[in-house]
Amino acid sequence: MTLVTHTTSQTSERRRVGPDYLNGSAAIGSRDDLLADAGAGTARVIDVAEHGVLPDGQDCTRALKIALAECRGSGAKRLVFPKGRYVFRPEFADELYLFTSNNDEGLKRVAFMLNGLEDLVIDGQGSEFIFHGFISPFVVQNCANIVFENFSVDFERTFHSEGIIVAAHEEGLDVRIPEAFPYKVHNGLLLFMMSEDTGGPLTSVSKGEVCGSGHLLEFDTAKRETAFMARDYFFNGTSCYAAKDLGGRVVRLSVPGLVGKLGNTLVFGPDHRKHPGFVVTHSREVSFERITLHHAGGMGILGQLSHNLRVHRCRVTPSHGRMLSTTADATHFVNCTGFIELTENLFENQKDDATNIHGTYVQVTEILDANEIMVRLMHRQQHGFDFLHAGVEVEFVHGKSMITLGASAVKKAVRINKEFTRVVFDRALPKELVVGDALASIHDYARVTISGNIVRNNRARGMLLNCRGKTVVENNYFHTPGAAILFEGDSFFWFEQGGVRDCVIRKNVFENCLFGVWGKAVIDVKAGILERKESSRYNRNILIENNTFRVFGEQSLLHAYCMDGLTWRDNRVELTTAYPAPTKASPRFDISHCDNVVIDGEPRV
Amino acid sequence: MTLVTHTTSQTSERRRVGPDYLNGSAAIGSRDDLLADAGAGTARVIDVAEHGVLPDGQDCTRALKIALAECRGSGAKRLVFPKGRYVFRPEFADELYLFTSNNDEGLKRVAFMLNGLEDLVIDGQGSEFIFHGFISPFVVQNCANIVFENFSVDFERTFHSEGIIVAAHEEGLDVRIPEAFPYKVHNGLLLFMMSEDTGGPLTSVSKGEVCGSGHLLEFDTAKRETAFMARDYFFNGTSCYAAKDLGGRVVRLSVPGLVGKLGNTLVFGPDHRKHPGFVVTHSREVSFERITLHHAGGMGILGQLSHNLRVHRCRVTPSHGRMLSTTADATHFVNCTGFIELTENLFENQKDDATNIHGTYVQVTEILDANEIMVRLMHRQQHGFDFLHAGVEVEFVHGKSMITLGASAVKKAVRINKEFTRVVFDRALPKELVVGDALASIHDYARVTISGNIVRNNRARGMLLNCRGKTVVENNYFHTPGAAILFEGDSFFWFEQGGVRDCVIRKNVFENCLFGVWGKAVIDVKAGILERKESSRYNRNILIENNTFRVFGEQSLLHAYCMDGLTWRDNRVELTTAYPAPTKASPRFDISHCDNVVIDGEPRV
Repeated sequence: MTLVTHTTSQTSERRRVGPDYLNGSAAIGSRDDLLADAGAGTARVIDVAEHGVLPDGQDCTRALKIALAECRGSGAKRLVFPKGRYVFRPEFADELYLFTSNNDEGLKRVAFMLNGLEDLVIDGQGSEFIFHGFISPFVVQNCANIVFENFSVDFERTFHSEGIIVAAHEEGLDVRIPEAFPYKVHNGLLLFMMSEDTGGPLTSVSKGEVCGSGHLLEFDTAKRETAFMARDYFFNGTSCYAAKDLGGRVVRLSVPGLVGKLGNTLVFGPDHRKHPGFVVTHSREVSFERITLHHAGGMGILGQLSHNLRVHRCRVTPSHGRMLSTTADATHFVNCTGFIELTENLFENQKDDATNIHGTYVQVTEILDANEIMVRLMHRQQHGFDFLHAGVEVEFVHGKSMITLGASAVKKAVRINKEFTRVVFDRALPKELVVGDALASIHDYARVTISGNIVRNNRARGMLLNCRGKTVVENNYFHTPGAAILFEGDSFFWFEQGGVRDCVIRKNVFENCLFGVWGKAVIDVKAGILERKESSRYNRNILIENNTFRVFGEQSLLHAYCMDGLTWRDNRVELTTAYPAPTKASPRFDISHCDNVVIDGEPRV
Repeated sequence: MTLVTHTTSQTSERRRVGPDYLNGSAAIGSRDDLLADAGAGTARVIDVAEHGVLPDGQDCTRALKIALAECRGSGAKRLVFPKGRYVFRPEFADELYLFTSNNDEGLKRVAFMLNGLEDLVIDGQGSEFIFHGFISPFVVQNCANIVFENFSVDFERTFHSEGIIVAAHEEGLDVRIPEAFPYKVHNGLLLFMMSEDTGGPLTSVSKGEVCGSGHLLEFDTAKRETAFMARDYFFNGTSCYAAKDLGGRVVRLSVPGLVGKLGNTLVFGPDHRKHPGFVVTHSREVSFERITLHHAGGMGILGQLSHNLRVHRCRVTPSHGRMLSTTADATHFVNCTGFIELTENLFENQKDDATNIHGTYVQVTEILDANEIMVRLMHRQQHGFDFLHAGVEVEFVHGKSMITLGASAVKKAVRINKEFTRVVFDRALPKELVVGDALASIHDYARVTISGNIVRNNRARGMLLNCRGKTVVENNYFHTPGAAILFEGDSFFWFEQGGVRDCVIRKNVFENCLFGVWGKAVIDVKAGILERKESSRYNRNILIENNTFRVFGEQSLLHAYCMDGLTWRDNRVELTTAYPAPTKASPRFDISHCDNVVIDGEPRV
């Protein structure tokens, strides 16, 4: 192989300590700076072809491992894929047990396993990366200064499946399943399979790989969005549906209460989130540029416990006429620091929100001593999310009111297993703390920039803003079936830490949102506050200005409770006829238990 | 706590090197010797109560960890449970990712995690150990000289479920499900739940724990055995059944072709083998004495890569009137050395064989060099079974004929992941070796003693004898629906290494076996030989003498092919009317492609 060695600039170091990034005030333009030393002029380049990674339809996973090892060994700054279609299969992939917040933990095969790498650009040069089967495309762990640019990610066989509704019957629907979604009906159950050639009887050592399916949702085939007011059908704990094969790829689903419009598309969601597109964990300075994510078996990009993340000019969008792109959120960030930038991206048709930026609560399950407690990660998709270590500062909150009880610092944390940790603090616990209360870390909450994005046609909401760093959401376009923007945080269901401190929402267009069941206002400021609403003020300082709201009836623009500091000004409302107007009018502003609210210059008490 | 310290005898060391155990000729009587130094007179004893392990209905798992740590720290020889009912829950259990051959790998919670312990007796004094939920009762890893004695193991809620057949309908059966087996019918699917109080809607963060069910088998309620000629219904890849709730705990199953007799019991088998009762791995000198296994979520006792294992006067038997005991084999041993003794045990109503003692084949998937290949663990329940290390001797076999091609020794093994390993040998590969062939280790094959056991009413077969050490099966009683004794081994389906070299079957009673679908003769000597049957001789030297065969018709007593050295003499056959006689007679002896066969003194060609 050839190593193209250039003079190494010092910008790498500068990048990590430079004011742009530490201050988090970096404009989008600083992206060029970020990439400067990774350019052909200043860094060593490895062409994957030199290691046998070829766009020839053969599995590239083995050769890729060698190329990545070479990057590490040689200190190369750029790994380049000549434009082509590269295939990655799980057989020879690296394997590791990975806890991925809000996705499913597990022993995973990983194609691009970046572990402990620094200063590397992975440049696809417009290539297509096609993944087959149960494989995680990218995991970035303990890395720094990684840039992914200019390639697409897709799966040969998606983890979800689709079918066209061709008839209704008294116990459900008949669907025609396209050949892209192999299936079999076995013992009265519809199973989606990884490939058609895994036929034959299922036995105790059956080789047929089942996708695992556990969710139904109707999409409007013509509009390519969730069907008007379609609801979720959850099948958790199962991986199949009661069904009969009617022949001709038509299957009769027997699901009591299942309804849908003839011609619409029924999307069969997977029963897992095993394979997010990109997992970034315990890393810093990771950037995504011009990446197209057509599919992932989970979220598109998951960042956790990482610092300074940027997603720019990326697209989450289906391929091959499919209705769905990623099977969960397009992006999602947990306990991240520094900055998070989502700029000029397209997020469409993913099966959940465009982003959610939050922290994590653990519940206090036992008070063991004056300064010692047992805590538990409550949501199964938070298990193994170990953020409590000696030195970490935490806040205690009352479980039902979300009122802060005090703060402390961890002196010692003993992990019992993926759920429980015993924690000793450097001082006595707050007197009021009781079992059922929660705690989360106090850290350098990321500064969030969400700008110039298009969010549309996905299930559920747009942006979930639950980060205490300064948050600016501007010049975005939203067409979401649920709330376009949601503020939440609770310590009894999702256990996600939220509570903005300084949030600006301006110059966005909210177009015909709320055509689905996932929200009660275009901008929804809430939190899981069950008690003491009079005094609990969880979210603070939200400014909503110069936005355009296109609505198809008497819908709520803003719903808020238990917050302090809310200003609404210079927003424009336009009425459309895009959907049937709600028969029951909702107030434009639905506000309760708030302080310091000003709507168009008028204080609200 | 109190440490009762006695003079430490040297029998521990003697035990490990003593002639009884190394020679494997130990009679059952030597058990007393094995236990001698663990008695109260010669060893330190820890009473679990001193560490708060109490039979009070509260979870003992946390306190048990402390007691086990104390055993390690103090060098105690005996851990004693005052007689009582002890409860173990998964919440605070140790956690580890475990590969368990012929069971399911996974991140498991373990109640009794014995890791690196030596010279310990766990004495239950007749106690009941009750496990709740997804927890593995016992894992013994890297241990030596461990004795389990005098306690029972049961689960509060079994991993399988049962229902009484109350009606037949055109698409299946109606069953009444006892309260011991919580369930719900949700979206047209029957799910078995861990507890009744996990009701409420299933959502994306549902707290309801699903047992996971994927197999149906009819049992004769009165006879408490698998129903006459009942077949398996496999639902692999699913965890539920198409169903309607008819009320009154009666559920209508819609499973095309499902038949069963009114009043009989339908057993819903779990879709996993996550929690075997005892896993013994990489250990030596492990003994089970007077242990009763009422249930396990997988096999009862699994020994792998271990040396000198004894199961004596144990019982695998259901409790509480349940039809099933363990949900898979009662015992199972893979790549074990030294000796294996199964003596005076009761194995009944387990959902698979009483034992299977075998090795493991990996398949050659690539020939990389004159002395280098890539191999793959093919069966998903063999993944992670890493037996190839530098120095290990192996034999190569032709994949379709099982003919040995040669032997070699591993020079270097590089594990790719749980399936693939790249292996370099110390000499050139056999010339004939091609992709698709297999290899297994040549080792100190265990000497097997199976004596004085009762095997009855389980699914499938009795003893699977696939070990090349001297194997003696005597004075046992078999009443199995399939073959009582099966010899197999193949390299295309189970990938289990077999091929006995010296096996004696004598003074056993085979009573009315073959009343089910799992075998074609009472003693079935076969192997997965697809080619070159004329020359392949896989099993060798089997002597069958002085046994009693009670049969209910013209059934085969002995089926054999591709073996060398078979003697049948002085066996008694009695005709019974226990079941309807087969309408099609089978030959008493069905023998082909064998050498050196003598039946009652008459050579067979």
